[in-house]
Amino acid sequence: MPLWCIYHPPGTFEDPTSKQTLARDITTIYTMVGLPAFYVVVNFIPLPPTSMYIGGAPNDSKSKPFIRFSIDHIAVRLPNEDAEYRRVVTKINEILKPHVADKGYGWEFHVGETERRLWSIDGFEPPAFGSEGEKLWVERNEAVPWEGGK
Amino acid sequence: MPLWCIYHPPGTFEDPTSKQTLARDITTIYTMVGLPAFYVVVNFIPLPPTSMYIGGAPNDSKSKPFIRFSIDHIAVRLPNEDAEYRRVVTKINEILKPHVADKGYGWEFHVGETERRLWSIDGFEPPAFGSEGEKLWVERNEAVPWEGGK
Amino acid sequence: MPLWCIYHPPGTFEDPTSKQTLARDITTIYTMVGLPAFYVVVNFIPLPPTSMYIGGAPNDSKSKPFIRFSIDHIAVRLPNEDAEYRRVVTKINEILKPHVADKGYGWEFHVGETERRLWSIDGFEPPAFGSEGEKLWVERNEAVPWEGGK
Repeated sequence: MPLWCIYHPPGTFEDPTSKQTLARDITTIYTMVGLPAFYVVVNFIPLPPTSMYIGGAPNDSKSKPFIRFSIDHIAVRLPNEDAEYRRVVTKINEILKPHVADKGYGWEFHVGETERRLWSIDGFEPPAFGSEGEKLWVERNEAVPWEGGK
Repeated sequence: MPLWCIYHPPGTFEDPTSKQTLARDITTIYTMVGLPAFYVVVNFIPLPPTSMYIGGAPNDSKSKPFIRFSIDHIAVRLPNEDAEYRRVVTKINEILKPHVADKGYGWEFHVGETERRLWSIDGFEPPAFGSEGEKLWVERNEAVPWEGGK
Repeated sequence: MPLWCIYHPPGTFEDPTSKQTLARDITTIYTMVGLPAFYVVVNFIPLPPTSMYIGGAPNDSKSKPFIRFSIDHIAVRLPNEDAEYRRVVTKINEILKPHVADKGYGWEFHVGETERRLWSIDGFEPPAFGSEGEKLWVERNEAVPWEGGK
């Protein structure tokens, strides 16, 4: 469900361990609110400094590499309340801190929310948030037939 | 118009034929409702298992590679009706089946809808859905001046 | 803030200068309305003809390479007025002209607008559009603590 695309320059997230650790931490953002782990897809897209520009300057600052996170949320649309948005932003920054801030990287993220009814996994309509069907998907950690599903 | 980004692991969509066949089938989703073929852009973005994680696990399951489709729709905003959304999701899954399910791949897609008025091709404002201008673009399969266009 | 992903075939935007010049020109779209330059991130994502299809055909037309721009806007949501949308589209095309049209490339762009409250830079909530905090960020060209910020 959440799709994270992480654009990063050389010298950052080069070893698989650093990537998997981040991907696992990102996953907890969603599993802690009850979503299945397999919903969370994290793509690392490395870009050389000559392919990524910030304010027109190449992303080659060795002292402060810049990481750009582009995030799509689909399963749950947040209520239109400042406090709710702030809670999510704070949570994401908390999770990212050891992976970016503590390493001396700059970072930016934005989340787009898209229509849940235009979403499908393995041909299944994902069960409603908090439903019995979703609990089954959490337990199995894969898309399986669920009661009431199409 | 529709922009499809397909994130896929090694061992999937490696030969150009498998990619072009899928791209052509995707194109029919849109041409069958009357849109010009050239609106449909399909990008294949290969990612090694160490750059794509599902639920924190690398996408290296040889038994079930996972394909993630990220789709933007621009030309037509669906009416806010369950049946309409379901029809589109079903259609997409039907088209994808031989390319993913029948090959033993897991897959997920989501569609985001964006503002039509923030869209441009070759400097032209695309003609309205179902209009004479659009029929001209279908016929010519390229962006050309149309009556009433800017 | 604005995130531009530019999908382009071989033979286009191969030298860093052509990329940086475009990235700088894109940046002016935003700085001229008062936004900080460092908000603007431009990613060039090269794709071989066998990984990018337009209407089911590979993007290998040597006479007219095709460039696809995918743009996210976050800081400012446009008022829902035709004239406003048209102004932005015209401005973008004006900026792109020397980089695509004048080189004989075909091009398409679309802009998606996402929720400002789901956006963060270096752990900061970006200051409101046109605010004193934003002016400080413009002046410093980086994310710094601002009065009233969280």
